[in-house]
Amino acid sequence: MALPQQWLMSPTSRDVEEAARRLGGRVRRTPVLTSESLNTLTGAQLWFKCEHLQKTGAFKFRGATNAVVTLPADLARHGVATHSSGNHGAALACAARAAGIRAYIVVPEDVSATKLANIERYGGQVRLCEANLAARESMLDAVVEETGATFVHPYDNAAVIAGQGTATLELIGEVGALDAVVTPVGGGGLLAGAVLAAPPGMEVHGAEPLGADDAARSFASGVRVTDHAPDTVCDGLRTLLGVLNFDIIAERCASIVTASDAESLEAMRLIWSILKQLVEPSAAVTLAAILKDRDRFAGRRVGVVLSGGNADPASFSGAP
Amino acid sequence: MALPQQWLMSPTSRDVEEAARRLGGRVRRTPVLTSESLNTLTGAQLWFKCEHLQKTGAFKFRGATNAVVTLPADLARHGVATHSSGNHGAALACAARAAGIRAYIVVPEDVSATKLANIERYGGQVRLCEANLAARESMLDAVVEETGATFVHPYDNAAVIAGQGTATLELIGEVGALDAVVTPVGGGGLLAGAVLAAPPGMEVHGAEPLGADDAARSFASGVRVTDHAPDTVCDGLRTLLGVLNFDIIAERCASIVTASDAESLEAMRLIWSILKQLVEPSAAVTLAAILKDRDRFAGRRVGVVLSGGNADPASFSGAP
Repeated sequence: MALPQQWLMSPTSRDVEEAARRLGGRVRRTPVLTSESLNTLTGAQLWFKCEHLQKTGAFKFRGATNAVVTLPADLARHGVATHSSGNHGAALACAARAAGIRAYIVVPEDVSATKLANIERYGGQVRLCEANLAARESMLDAVVEETGATFVHPYDNAAVIAGQGTATLELIGEVGALDAVVTPVGGGGLLAGAVLAAPPGMEVHGAEPLGADDAARSFASGVRVTDHAPDTVCDGLRTLLGVLNFDIIAERCASIVTASDAESLEAMRLIWSILKQLVEPSAAVTLAAILKDRDRFAGRRVGVVLSGGNADPASFSGAP
Repeated sequence: MALPQQWLMSPTSRDVEEAARRLGGRVRRTPVLTSESLNTLTGAQLWFKCEHLQKTGAFKFRGATNAVVTLPADLARHGVATHSSGNHGAALACAARAAGIRAYIVVPEDVSATKLANIERYGGQVRLCEANLAARESMLDAVVEETGATFVHPYDNAAVIAGQGTATLELIGEVGALDAVVTPVGGGGLLAGAVLAAPPGMEVHGAEPLGADDAARSFASGVRVTDHAPDTVCDGLRTLLGVLNFDIIAERCASIVTASDAESLEAMRLIWSILKQLVEPSAAVTLAAILKDRDRFAGRRVGVVLSGGNADPASFSGAP
């Protein structure tokens, strides 16, 4: 399928800066929260960038918007397409609607009603397919063939990576220089973007579920692994690390810390009860990593990107 | 007991402005959130002022801080005292610690462990008493007698009311002119403060649980009622409307809307799932009121003060 050439090239720090200018007014400038209790608990000084309060509920809206608005007009008029049952699908639908173009979202037929409704309320054209990777890819190919839409990969795309980097750039712009930033890593868009956004001397760390530790293994070995059988409650982080993403992360990340699901869920409960933010487990893996690797972060100024809040309301059923 | 004379006089709009200058740097400038989904649902344009993200978890920190920092030095050196099992106790303890003075908090012996821990972590000197009003008041008298501390009433105090008003003033300063603001009403500090903060032409509405509707009845009759047998899940709003508070509210409020507990809990779930903010039921009564009195607010720019997030973590037990 035809893609803008620049989407396939490794993005740079300048791409993140340009994305930030482009996205001003198009994405939300999300709040940054602090907590004395969590500072005491971790020994670090933490700033939480609330991307779960981004439009469509996740940082994904940044990357999707940057892709949509940089798409050449002759391609844009045919719309955009992707496969995603989660935050990227809703984000691309919303970004496309804002630009006045169509978004075709290929979704596995076992998708939850909540996630489907989330894509449809932003006007996404949903195409259901069987729940396996081959079916997703062939359905996407068919949609692109039929409509002429441009495929926007959820993370392995330079415009998407640059867009995600604006979350970290905005955080630094608001709170000043940081010693380190920690983001979740699934496909690697948010983490690679943070690497590009970080000024020299600022460490960038990925936090990854132990049950989907391909980024940690790839980082350790220096070769992008592709054997991957994810088993984690962090459903936003089950994807395999992307190619463009791996190159950026391997070159300039400080570490990838892994956390068990129990650790991520405990961290999620801390964020719920102390920060009062209903983040998803995939966002809380960051705090889990900081608690686990305490000595590395203690005494330092650390940014934490809370990536998404796509928790299912059914999970609140035990509430009063 | 001896109290600063100005605390017993009705506060003015100027007192709120002075409090805002005084509190700058001492209290958090809390985020303001918006949601297209909630705008669609209510037909109004809503701005949510996140006072549940205020230090100590509630707007109460504003009033407590304003009282502590306006206390004359000869009184302040003996500390402050109050009776409260909830947000005001923690807020006063924290405000006193920041000012380097003691806070004695009289707490009924059936207090939850969470609330007790919340007061103690801010260095409050806890004095337990029997769980009835007479015991609370006599214990408070004894503490004041023994220590020389100054009683800071949770709401029926001019400095406290002026402090609470800064939440509304800050909201207007950030988002511009509003047609109306809605706050919860229990003792009436937050609502009376909003009245004083509101410029001419801006309506101020109280939202109250049906099971503790003394403010609504007082407002309707023009006489402050004192028959009060609260029965509501909104535990922050069970208190009787204060005397200073009633005078301000009766004179200049637009309405007091009552909502059932079922309506407040439904509104709370909307705030949890859409805004991703873990507010307590007492905060959600505002959205319940807006949904209930839809025609009054539709098409208008409306501020909503989310008052607190003192929900018990045990209530999250059904979560993943």
